Amino acid sequence: MRGLMQNFPLHENSILDHAKKHHASREIISRSIEGPIHKTNYAQIHHRAKQCAQALVKLGIKPGQVVATMAWNTWRHLETWYGILGAGAVYHTLNPRLFPDQLNYIINHAEDQILFLDATFIPIMENLAEKLPNIRAYIIMADKTAMPKTKLKNALCYEDLLAAEDGDFQWILTDENDAAGICYTSGTTGNPKGVVYSHRSNVLHTLIAAMPDVLGPGNADSVMPVVPMFHANAWGLAFLAPMVGAKMVMPGAKMDGESIYELLDSEKVSFTAAVPTVWLMLLQYLEGGNRKLPHLKRVAIGGSAVPRSMIEKFDKDYGVTVSHLWGMTEMSPVGTTGSLRAHHGELDYEDQLDIRLKQGLAPYMVDMKITDDDGKELPWDGKSFGHLMVRGPAVARAYLKGEGGEIVDEESWFDTGDVATIDAEGYMQITDRSKDVIKSGGEWISSIEIENLAVGHPDVAEAAVIGLPHPKWDERPLLVLVPKEGAAPSARAIKDYLKDKIAKWWMPDDIVLTDEIPHTATGKIQKMALREKYQNHRWTDEAG
Amino acid sequence: MRGLMQNFPLHENSILDHAKKHHASREIISRSIEGPIHKTNYAQIHHRAKQCAQALVKLGIKPGQVVATMAWNTWRHLETWYGILGAGAVYHTLNPRLFPDQLNYIINHAEDQILFLDATFIPIMENLAEKLPNIRAYIIMADKTAMPKTKLKNALCYEDLLAAEDGDFQWILTDENDAAGICYTSGTTGNPKGVVYSHRSNVLHTLIAAMPDVLGPGNADSVMPVVPMFHANAWGLAFLAPMVGAKMVMPGAKMDGESIYELLDSEKVSFTAAVPTVWLMLLQYLEGGNRKLPHLKRVAIGGSAVPRSMIEKFDKDYGVTVSHLWGMTEMSPVGTTGSLRAHHGELDYEDQLDIRLKQGLAPYMVDMKITDDDGKELPWDGKSFGHLMVRGPAVARAYLKGEGGEIVDEESWFDTGDVATIDAEGYMQITDRSKDVIKSGGEWISSIEIENLAVGHPDVAEAAVIGLPHPKWDERPLLVLVPKEGAAPSARAIKDYLKDKIAKWWMPDDIVLTDEIPHTATGKIQKMALREKYQNHRWTDEAG
Repeated sequence: MRGLMQNFPLHENSILDHAKKHHASREIISRSIEGPIHKTNYAQIHHRAKQCAQALVKLGIKPGQVVATMAWNTWRHLETWYGILGAGAVYHTLNPRLFPDQLNYIINHAEDQILFLDATFIPIMENLAEKLPNIRAYIIMADKTAMPKTKLKNALCYEDLLAAEDGDFQWILTDENDAAGICYTSGTTGNPKGVVYSHRSNVLHTLIAAMPDVLGPGNADSVMPVVPMFHANAWGLAFLAPMVGAKMVMPGAKMDGESIYELLDSEKVSFTAAVPTVWLMLLQYLEGGNRKLPHLKRVAIGGSAVPRSMIEKFDKDYGVTVSHLWGMTEMSPVGTTGSLRAHHGELDYEDQLDIRLKQGLAPYMVDMKITDDDGKELPWDGKSFGHLMVRGPAVARAYLKGEGGEIVDEESWFDTGDVATIDAEGYMQITDRSKDVIKSGGEWISSIEIENLAVGHPDVAEAAVIGLPHPKWDERPLLVLVPKEGAAPSARAIKDYLKDKIAKWWMPDDIVLTDEIPHTATGKIQKMALREKYQNHRWTDEAG
Repeated sequence: MRGLMQNFPLHENSILDHAKKHHASREIISRSIEGPIHKTNYAQIHHRAKQCAQALVKLGIKPGQVVATMAWNTWRHLETWYGILGAGAVYHTLNPRLFPDQLNYIINHAEDQILFLDATFIPIMENLAEKLPNIRAYIIMADKTAMPKTKLKNALCYEDLLAAEDGDFQWILTDENDAAGICYTSGTTGNPKGVVYSHRSNVLHTLIAAMPDVLGPGNADSVMPVVPMFHANAWGLAFLAPMVGAKMVMPGAKMDGESIYELLDSEKVSFTAAVPTVWLMLLQYLEGGNRKLPHLKRVAIGGSAVPRSMIEKFDKDYGVTVSHLWGMTEMSPVGTTGSLRAHHGELDYEDQLDIRLKQGLAPYMVDMKITDDDGKELPWDGKSFGHLMVRGPAVARAYLKGEGGEIVDEESWFDTGDVATIDAEGYMQITDRSKDVIKSGGEWISSIEIENLAVGHPDVAEAAVIGLPHPKWDERPLLVLVPKEGAAPSARAIKDYLKDKIAKWWMPDDIVLTDEIPHTATGKIQKMALREKYQNHRWTDEAG
């Protein structure tokens, strides 16, 4: 027997249609690239997205073709996404922080046809354009008066293009399983790989994100996605805010503490989301001027683990609740969130913090498990750690053009590349990256856990733990430290400090001091480079 | 270009699978039909739902066949839904308040194969069984010790059936567009008509309901669906609570103020949902004993319009927020909810109440419009009232077996049978039923609005307004009043009372007193019966 309910394809642009009809005058406030604060609303965004779609069709874009954007979070970036989708095309967000070679590779690999860009990024593209034969037009997201001079051939003015269209356009609605967007993962090895979201997966992901325990803003919220739209879909907020009719506050190119604070305050932001470094800057700025956050209620923090002190400061000094969020590009990106359970209300604050520091619970439509090297499922006991595997309707089943081969097993499990524990209540905690975990005598040692402890020592500025080959134990941990300015902690002092905090066999066999630890473009420690640097390290006698 | 995300059919039982894995020990507390409070959790519900599915397969149920339930909200009713769905079958909820003829009709019309029932309802079914040749088994939802004697042939004991199975069973997963559930609408004319929900529509509806502005409980909530599962899917709560991992509190057969209060208090219920009459009983009980509601935060009220005084009492005396909810069986059932917008925070309390008394805003995936008799769309100005039309993925496109013919137009609009206004901010307010609105000189008069005003008069217990034929104006309103005990208000006094509250041409031409106004089984005024009763009414001269 078939159901007798209405057919309604899960198409992204139905979200903007809803916002236009039911939340027409709700504001989108942006710090423009030109500088001034810009104000618009969902009705106008809708109209301009239609103009944008018309312009794309006129430029020859066909359904299924790919259109790239390299832009900050502004109203114009929002319009282009819905405009591209409404033309039946596929948006491809470019992360301007990628190396030029990577950008070159992914623009050609995705076969991008047109590229929208903020004026900020013209120099990057001028240097690359010669190697990008497929790009028919570079659309500079500015009005005529703000159009900079550029060597780019086929540079078009965004506002001129839109002004030439009347907005009388029917969205080109493709099948719900057709591609909607592409985002490349910046793997530490090999070429970046393209994750291809469908309309269905993006709509379902937005509905996951809408749940109160996940992101969950409502129409009365003022939502600021500080996390860029080119960073894993701004964690879904560019779809979620219009879906629920929330006000949007877009920070543009300015992510410093002062600029963020200014918008938080003037636009009464109640919910915001970004990586920890942004909030470190903000907290410093707040403390510098004895400023408060009377409007802000919740901050979602993801991208890397949230420091304990950050949650505490937001709680105690500002009355703002931090939600820990974990995800990845291949998950659209939401994976888990650190909401507390009802009975945790009985715990004292420090014990609650222990739970909130975990990456958290998986919502409906995100399934997860941990396995050992043989694929055997490990128990949810908060101790066993194994490969974190995920699956669900917003999880990738393959990369664009089959790069990387089969990435899921026959039961659809995708290996996140993370190593994690899951406790009896379902709280997942990342303990390491699979390639960084140290395998010593058949057991695993978490490099991240030791690093987190080591930076607690007053003389330590940064710490990295790597596994190096060992004749007896296969691998043993080496702790690499950048001391704080003027400090020179002894190996003995560090070991004494760690002694009661880790299992005896986790104790790094050696500790070396260095001036600098190498990082990737996105701020992660380059462990591969470290392993190369220390490949000839000789274990001291004590370690033998 | 196709998306490259995972295939994940929107199947109802994935919700219970999620609850079992991620919220295994979260409690389901029920007032059992036998009397005592019963405690279980999602892991056990999952296991028993598997046993139930096994038992159904053993009884010969095939995918796509229909299995009925006539039961109160308890853990067993929850298990049977997921058990039926997990056997690939279709659940059909029977409203025990229907007339026996209607029950007889719908059980045969839906071709129900098996019927689960609480012991409470054995007498109803004993009287009907002879006319129900398709029913292979009546499964009494009790254990052996509580099994009553019954004349029903093929009566089976629920707990015995489950105990015979080991729960080692794979859900039979049918296509997401296959039927999942059936609920008949109790129309005031003709036979009831079956709405056939699909797995997809029910999952999407649950995701709509999960949004913070709709029902929006989280895992820390304790949720009590007082609204019965046989009343439009308990507004989705039987799917929503396990989806988010909320505790469930099931009131069983006892809906009186004392019983409801007892569970609200002992189980620390934070969110609950029911029709206004339940809350009237509760408020009376609370006031009788100076009782408070320290745990309860939100109450969703739907089914009929919420009285202003009820919202005020919950707000001021108990610190509980009332969310006005409107929907219908054909909408799965959520239509609109009365959440406030951010800028309404600036309004004073009475003005906020005016907004909260409206039926509210449509969430994403619910589209609505109002039209005149010719199908022309009317403006959203809060004044124009017209036929309320809706569409979306959880809205019916047809009734079972095509009864009632085409029920949506070529653009999928479904006529709700209600007359409503929509204001500039998107708040919908029901003003009447289409068949009750009074058409006078080409303009419409809302019978409900006049009724609501008339009951404000201190001498009036109940009021009904009907349109009667009129030689000059086509129709004019007649106001029928039940006076309060001992009162006998004059027509003049009532008209004086209404004078400044309604437009002059809305003033009822005549006012008649009566002892009783007839009601339907679900408590609605039977306007058709009233129109018949007063069909020979002669207008007084004044009305001419």
